[in-house]
Amino acid sequence: MPTQTLRWRDDALILLDQTRLPEELVYATYRHVEELARAIEGLVVRGAPAIGLAAAYGVVVGARAAVNCAPEAFCRRVEDAIARLARTRPTAVNLFWALDQMQEVLAANRGRDNHAICDALLEAAHRLFEEDRQICRQIGAHGAVLLRDGSQVITHCNAGGLATADYGTALGVVYAAQEAGKKVAVFADETRPLLQGSRLTAWELMQSGIDVKVICDNAAAVVLRNEAIDCCIVGADRIAKNGDVANKIGTYGLAILAREHGVPFYVAAPVSTLDMALASGAEIPIEKRDAAEIRNGMGKPTAPDAVPVYNPAFDVTPCDLVSAIISEKGVARAPYEPTLRAWVEL
Amino acid sequence: MPTQTLRWRDDALILLDQTRLPEELVYATYRHVEELARAIEGLVVRGAPAIGLAAAYGVVVGARAAVNCAPEAFCRRVEDAIARLARTRPTAVNLFWALDQMQEVLAANRGRDNHAICDALLEAAHRLFEEDRQICRQIGAHGAVLLRDGSQVITHCNAGGLATADYGTALGVVYAAQEAGKKVAVFADETRPLLQGSRLTAWELMQSGIDVKVICDNAAAVVLRNEAIDCCIVGADRIAKNGDVANKIGTYGLAILAREHGVPFYVAAPVSTLDMALASGAEIPIEKRDAAEIRNGMGKPTAPDAVPVYNPAFDVTPCDLVSAIISEKGVARAPYEPTLRAWVEL
Repeated sequence: MPTQTLRWRDDALILLDQTRLPEELVYATYRHVEELARAIEGLVVRGAPAIGLAAAYGVVVGARAAVNCAPEAFCRRVEDAIARLARTRPTAVNLFWALDQMQEVLAANRGRDNHAICDALLEAAHRLFEEDRQICRQIGAHGAVLLRDGSQVITHCNAGGLATADYGTALGVVYAAQEAGKKVAVFADETRPLLQGSRLTAWELMQSGIDVKVICDNAAAVVLRNEAIDCCIVGADRIAKNGDVANKIGTYGLAILAREHGVPFYVAAPVSTLDMALASGAEIPIEKRDAAEIRNGMGKPTAPDAVPVYNPAFDVTPCDLVSAIISEKGVARAPYEPTLRAWVEL
Repeated sequence: MPTQTLRWRDDALILLDQTRLPEELVYATYRHVEELARAIEGLVVRGAPAIGLAAAYGVVVGARAAVNCAPEAFCRRVEDAIARLARTRPTAVNLFWALDQMQEVLAANRGRDNHAICDALLEAAHRLFEEDRQICRQIGAHGAVLLRDGSQVITHCNAGGLATADYGTALGVVYAAQEAGKKVAVFADETRPLLQGSRLTAWELMQSGIDVKVICDNAAAVVLRNEAIDCCIVGADRIAKNGDVANKIGTYGLAILAREHGVPFYVAAPVSTLDMALASGAEIPIEKRDAAEIRNGMGKPTAPDAVPVYNPAFDVTPCDLVSAIISEKGVARAPYEPTLRAWVEL
């Protein structure tokens, strides 16, 4: 089991600082919404489900800080906290989904005293956290069926325990297969520019005793050609109703390479990642991040200072490259829309 | 025109230290074969044509150091130098080709005095250097025809002036198009693990006033999808007689992505890169490099210390993914073997 990504303790949110892995295992404590919002923007916590949970607890942080205000001011400050947290990252829909849940709890408890509202918000955040733990295990159970004993898997970025409450989506499938007695070996794309694959996925898989090898992103094609790869499994930041998948930059290319080599390409994500309001992936907003991530990625100049850079954090994989979507409700295959709709309405 | 990669001065070989670009422009002087061999292994000089030229001058370095030996010992030491230089890098065939040329010069001059042999070897190295300059310009002229004014090009690794005597193969095509009055914009894959794209290609294109944008390798798929890319152009380290191309790791994946998006994929390389003794790319030896390049690539741990790593320096792109091979002799298209054979026999 991977180390815990986030937890609530002593009226504060504690985050494992993922920017400092694997060098240092450091926790940071958040009691102010603005600091937490900057931590989310700065990727102290990342991964669509974990971002949603951090934001849910962030609403509690905002409520606690305002508990001594008059009731109207209190509610306004909670809503300000929600608005600020919603501005942190544009692509992962789980963020907005979690904040919507918190907004509903606030609305349902208006009129109660501030302390009671704080307690209700904290209870809601805890519930989302516990749900995420269970959802990841259900994703794992549904996905593990797709892996045979001795499977070799490629994954991209980190969709593991570090990206969720504690078990992971794509890596949850690997953990569940292992727990079911199947041996699984993972090739982890290092995932430039921020190396979530080599820094985070490799680290948590090693902690769990799973056979992992790090490859540069541009070695995936050769691995698909020369190794007996059973499938690729990745997470998702947002899935449109037709099954188009936004995920970490590089996912789209990997999906093309998988199809070229006849290798199934699986996406594992909770139902909260579905955005049924979007007809296709073309409507998903894609976050562009700072040029420094590429020019100066590892604390050292790796490109000329002034060189222009194109640095989208995500890309969209069209549904026809996706072999299956694995959620806590089961395994969907094309055409995706009827199954995704049923999942949302269940 | 890019800065000069290597030159002979004061009885020594001077190399631009490419491991320190773009931070520092530093030259190192080599008067000992072993030091030069380690510099080639450590990528102070890299790029198939430049490796061949550095090795040719390296033979002169070895001969000068032995000039006061008895004739038999002198010849043995020159042959030892050739053998040591041949062990530096296994994939780029230009290295062996250049050393073969020097071996022939040695054989043709046996019996003359040591100084005369040294002079003959130096003259041969200078001739290879001058030929490479002209060859690159011819490659550029043949390739530039394939680019329209306003072209957008993706390149991988560095096949520029820094990889050759001074003009480049893949980038020679870009320079020649520019000199012919066509505007060309380049997307440079950063090219993990050693970032030859962001460190070297971006640097030399900026020096030449060519519009360049750096992308992470795993953004190439999205660039091919969203930008109007006219073609990909890469260099080569060895080309088998059927047209299979060994080049920097990631080339194979880029070629698949190019075909998926209907974008031509061109390989630019001198005839000395052809290895007509090999039926296909399956026979090309692929150098595996140190795990530290991935785990600790930029002077900072970027993966767990002990994590296994798969780090091939090159991959093989099958000839059916190659739209054309551009050499100093012209432009070859499939089936490649007859044209490549004619080039070698011309």
